Amino acid sequence: MSVERPEKAVVLLSGGVDSTTLLVYLSSRLRIPEIRAISFRYGQKHVCEVAMAEWQAQEAGVKEHRIVDVPHVGALTQGGSALTDPSIEIPTLQQLSDAEKTQPPTYVPNRNMMLLSMAAAYAESTQTEAVYYGAQAQDEYGYWDCTTDFLERMNSTLALNRKVAVRVVAPFMSWRKADIIRLGDELGVDYAHTWTCYRGGDQSCGTCPSCVERERAFVEARREPTI
Amino acid sequence: MSVERPEKAVVLLSGGVDSTTLLVYLSSRLRIPEIRAISFRYGQKHVCEVAMAEWQAQEAGVKEHRIVDVPHVGALTQGGSALTDPSIEIPTLQQLSDAEKTQPPTYVPNRNMMLLSMAAAYAESTQTEAVYYGAQAQDEYGYWDCTTDFLERMNSTLALNRKVAVRVVAPFMSWRKADIIRLGDELGVDYAHTWTCYRGGDQSCGTCPSCVERERAFVEARREPTI
Repeated sequence: MSVERPEKAVVLLSGGVDSTTLLVYLSSRLRIPEIRAISFRYGQKHVCEVAMAEWQAQEAGVKEHRIVDVPHVGALTQGGSALTDPSIEIPTLQQLSDAEKTQPPTYVPNRNMMLLSMAAAYAESTQTEAVYYGAQAQDEYGYWDCTTDFLERMNSTLALNRKVAVRVVAPFMSWRKADIIRLGDELGVDYAHTWTCYRGGDQSCGTCPSCVERERAFVEARREPTI
Repeated sequence: MSVERPEKAVVLLSGGVDSTTLLVYLSSRLRIPEIRAISFRYGQKHVCEVAMAEWQAQEAGVKEHRIVDVPHVGALTQGGSALTDPSIEIPTLQQLSDAEKTQPPTYVPNRNMMLLSMAAAYAESTQTEAVYYGAQAQDEYGYWDCTTDFLERMNSTLALNRKVAVRVVAPFMSWRKADIIRLGDELGVDYAHTWTCYRGGDQSCGTCPSCVERERAFVEARREPTI
């Protein structure tokens, strides 16, 4: 089976811009026949993103959408992350020091390994070799578990499996966020049904690192050509 | 910090022979000042092992024992494992074919990566670099996620973390189970308060692969010297 266009795929679907675009890409461009989506309620303040994931999964006509409750992810990392700990304020992008940008307060200890390991278990149990992951390394601020190195090492571990060697595929890893949005616009992605803001209020705050990055990317993607 | 005798440690404690011996080794031989234990209810039929883990953690006087409910591990792997799926019978060791011995029906898809990733998150959140893991590769039957290769690749992934580079340490990896029991006997481990049987009935069945292996190891460990 080629990972270029597999018969089956599992996609990690957060309900944000990147994973939603990835889902639509898999279903309407690659036309993968059997897509399963998996989303997590892990104690994130912006759990409202999961409702967007649900909408998008239904829209894409996936074979199954698993929404998994993993409150222990938040509980085990209390005191560790502004994303899951009510007592730690989500910073604005401006408040982040350069040092913090390599591992900001919104980083959740080992979250991506926990989520990917569950997605890989789900894939293995459904005899699916490809797990699609919307990670994108060129964010304004960085997480070690969103890098090409991280992905390669996770894959080298999963490759040891003696029956179903699951492989995590991250097609957008080296893309700019604006390029992801350009692709999504081509594919007709409904970005009104995506969620980005870390604060998870009724409306997006517009100042958290995630909101600022989204806004900049949309401006860049949809800018009129200068000449 | 040396991983030989760190100030802090997290130990994966299933309540079986290997992890219990490891816990007692860390507390009474290495005398690590700050030990945290973590156990999981993941939908295993032999969830009674967790009560043994609780007893041993208290006996060892750990700083904290986290028992984490992760029913999704069983739910995501339904149809994949005799250990978590009520409709799949636990085989006896004799029923296992040679082919099955490299990945037997009691294997739970990607379980160890899921559990280790949670233990690593817990360690990172408590500023602990060493996660101790009672894996032992020389079982009668094999799991890819109980091998030295698996461990090395997990560690190479975790080493990318920019703040707390957690390392999984498995001192018994190349030991025979009988040697683990010999060490435990020296340390005074109370093996009556450990659980091994996969079936998780009122009493150990004596025929599942895990029971047979335990019994053989105890016979080997406690055999009178021939001369």
